Amino acid sequence: MTMTSPAAATEGEEAVALLARARGLVDPELRAAVESLPEPIRTVARYHFGWEDERGRPSSAGAGKAIRPALVLAAARALGADQHGAVSPAVAVELTHNFTLLHDDVIDEDPTRRHRPTAWTVFGVPDAVISGDALMSLATKVLAESRHPAAAAAVARLSDCVIELCAGQQTDCAFEERAPDEVTVDEVLTMATAKTGALLGSSCALGALYAGADDEAVAALDAFGREAGLAFQLIDDLIGIWGDPERTGKPAGADLMAHKKSLPVVAALASGTEAAEELAELYRRPMDAESVRRAAEAVERAGGRDWAGLQAAERMARAVHELSRAVPDLSGAGDLLALAEFVTRRTR
Amino acid sequence: MTMTSPAAATEGEEAVALLARARGLVDPELRAAVESLPEPIRTVARYHFGWEDERGRPSSAGAGKAIRPALVLAAARALGADQHGAVSPAVAVELTHNFTLLHDDVIDEDPTRRHRPTAWTVFGVPDAVISGDALMSLATKVLAESRHPAAAAAVARLSDCVIELCAGQQTDCAFEERAPDEVTVDEVLTMATAKTGALLGSSCALGALYAGADDEAVAALDAFGREAGLAFQLIDDLIGIWGDPERTGKPAGADLMAHKKSLPVVAALASGTEAAEELAELYRRPMDAESVRRAAEAVERAGGRDWAGLQAAERMARAVHELSRAVPDLSGAGDLLALAEFVTRRTR
Repeated sequence: MTMTSPAAATEGEEAVALLARARGLVDPELRAAVESLPEPIRTVARYHFGWEDERGRPSSAGAGKAIRPALVLAAARALGADQHGAVSPAVAVELTHNFTLLHDDVIDEDPTRRHRPTAWTVFGVPDAVISGDALMSLATKVLAESRHPAAAAAVARLSDCVIELCAGQQTDCAFEERAPDEVTVDEVLTMATAKTGALLGSSCALGALYAGADDEAVAALDAFGREAGLAFQLIDDLIGIWGDPERTGKPAGADLMAHKKSLPVVAALASGTEAAEELAELYRRPMDAESVRRAAEAVERAGGRDWAGLQAAERMARAVHELSRAVPDLSGAGDLLALAEFVTRRTR
Repeated sequence: MTMTSPAAATEGEEAVALLARARGLVDPELRAAVESLPEPIRTVARYHFGWEDERGRPSSAGAGKAIRPALVLAAARALGADQHGAVSPAVAVELTHNFTLLHDDVIDEDPTRRHRPTAWTVFGVPDAVISGDALMSLATKVLAESRHPAAAAAVARLSDCVIELCAGQQTDCAFEERAPDEVTVDEVLTMATAKTGALLGSSCALGALYAGADDEAVAALDAFGREAGLAFQLIDDLIGIWGDPERTGKPAGADLMAHKKSLPVVAALASGTEAAEELAELYRRPMDAESVRRAAEAVERAGGRDWAGLQAAERMARAVHELSRAVPDLSGAGDLLALAEFVTRRTR
């Protein structure tokens, strides 16, 4: 949609390099932690991370973009610490993220993840649930064994975050049972904050904790990550309707086809417009290609697309404002800003 | 079977009093922790703990015997500490235990628990899985927020324990897929240690950690709890075949009816006797009352009953030996011994 300016392109490359560096820094400890798990939990985890295929042969399937570990490391650097001291919390958030993916795929009965069959379809529901449990405990173990003075505080924060993630996932499931026009924008925003913002916020907060930051700076970094996370979710929801399937793996219209109550859809439904009624009508029936096209148009006419874009921009502005409370000279937080920009540029 | 001596009766009463005192000491913090959970996770937890019925009305259904919290408190006392300082780890192990029950019931598709419908049958699989996840994170949160110098060490130990519990549950599920005579006694002992011994061991170890004990004493208490836990499992398996349904809620023969590969059964099958072959044959078919009766007899004739009883006694002896390494004058560990005796006296 938007033209990519040369500066933005450079920042995009910078973020890609940051993610690659985070992956390189985190992967050895992440793999060592996973290898410490007993069999066959380890095998399920190796498959889920994309390191092995269904038959245990080495694979180089994408293991995700390492956004959360990169945020931990960048937050530590923004607060003047050496990122090498924050590898343990970076590993912990990546394990936590993957625990939620394993369980969410079971709960949502999702057949694919990152272009591959989900773990529960390969290993069965019991092994997927059990392996998720083990990854979560591995996350707290990695923090607790880091011998960092902030280890206990980090465990407390991560545990709180997981409880919020659970609440978000539960709310998301409950929305499925309700008519689309019964769900309010505020409810979906709260759910998205819990499901996405909480762990991005905790990633930044854990980086700050391991940099020895005080409570106020930790809270500011948490707020930065939460707001950036919500912006990320808004963009992701736009991709789910209009986005580029080649770059994201999500075909355009996928969320509409699945009757997903995403943020732009709920905002459109709440608009009180004629287009809202048309959209509500479309959401009451099974979708085909034509009704998906009409639904996307209705979301746009009802203002859902613009609202989501503006909300995303507003959240990013809030994120930067929060960050500036902990890092007044934002030139020291370049990596964090590059990552935040990167995750909100995925539509281009 | 065995006559109850007056001394043993007194010890049994002592244990019952200890459990009641542990429940009284732990419940306020346990309830406060559960109340801190977001809705509707809190409702699922309240139901699971037996504090509310399906419709959210107050209930006084049994919430379990509080053996694990009582072990934490008794371990702290055995090492000369005030038990009030060990309430947080006592709450944490109770939360952990209940997290495993919630998930195990989903995985095993068990319809009842403590004479009530299991949480997943009332609230659905997604809510039960999610609530289990939340209880586990609540457990690490309670430890991490206890501000005790041993908090991080306790989280590391509990996390390790959960990974072992996961491995035990996974092995148990995998056994279901195998023919009964393909499972070895060693495999079932390892599984039982992981599923039952690990958390009883961790309960004692956490009590020791919060009493400020050194690594050696913590390891000794862990070993005490593990061995006592295995004795407990052996007795529980005997109850599953011959036990008193009124006192335990488990009808005699229940484990045989379910074709469970319990310790006495696997030991009987591995005995190479004629009775072993008869038992293997019975295990290949659906059971009725008559075949359950014959299977119980076959386990006994093949030596499975005696083996389990002797193993239980041997494990208890080892448990006491381990305990004496940390508490040379065992008169100071009377509560721990009373609890260990209590859990292995349940057949009478």
